[in-house]
Amino acid sequence: MQASKIEHIGIAVKDLDKSISLYEEMLGYECYKVEEVKDQKVRTAFFKIGETKLELLEATDPSSPIARFIEKRGEGMHHLAFAVSNIEERLMNMEKKGINLIDKKARKGADDLNIAFLHPGSTSGVLIELCENKNKK
Amino acid sequence: MQASKIEHIGIAVKDLDKSISLYEEMLGYECYKVEEVKDQKVRTAFFKIGETKLELLEATDPSSPIARFIEKRGEGMHHLAFAVSNIEERLMNMEKKGINLIDKKARKGADDLNIAFLHPGSTSGVLIELCENKNKK
Repeated sequence: MQASKIEHIGIAVKDLDKSISLYEEMLGYECYKVEEVKDQKVRTAFFKIGETKLELLEATDPSSPIARFIEKRGEGMHHLAFAVSNIEERLMNMEKKGINLIDKKARKGADDLNIAFLHPGSTSGVLIELCENKNKK
Repeated sequence: MQASKIEHIGIAVKDLDKSISLYEEMLGYECYKVEEVKDQKVRTAFFKIGETKLELLEATDPSSPIARFIEKRGEGMHHLAFAVSNIEERLMNMEKKGINLIDKKARKGADDLNIAFLHPGSTSGVLIELCENKNKK
């Protein structure tokens, strides 16, 4: 897949404002952006850490994937995102290698990235997101 | 806490050799080390990715924390490790801020690091590890 870095780590939280305060207190600096992603029914908050980011995710609706995750497993790490180039080519390669895709085509995600998810059943239980920043080409 | 980067992301797996093959296939390169950490009753495999690492963890005994995690929640992301300096001072600071510590003092972990865990009940459900590389001072 030739991922250049971990783009971010997604963390499912019940109460975004409370978790922002907690991570601000723990890391010693402020989150740099809060954003709503309507089609995923989430509100997100981002913290920079080295070359990567933490993305806190709160459901804005009970039908959100984040609400369903928390219901099943409680708060915690939800997904792991790799920065890649040529995301469509990567998805084709993953599929050829027998990895099940949640998204057969990339779509718009938070932070203005093109994203696609791989199925955790194919990746030792980890929900993996591929992210491409088209602006960085 | 002034963490400089994500040191690694720990992933609990049932079958280390199978997951090594899977991540090698997915990432397109080989894991650089397999190591047993006897006091944690785990066998670990490391992959470099940008400035951070993925650490696959397999239990070597049913009483291992990794075996108990998998029994409860299945395979998946287990912990998130931050690189810090002055780990003992960081632990004192965390405790002062009301964050519960699993390890009140740092101890030896995999990859020759000094490590300590924070309690996930204090950190939105994420098991956080602080890591100090004493050789890098």
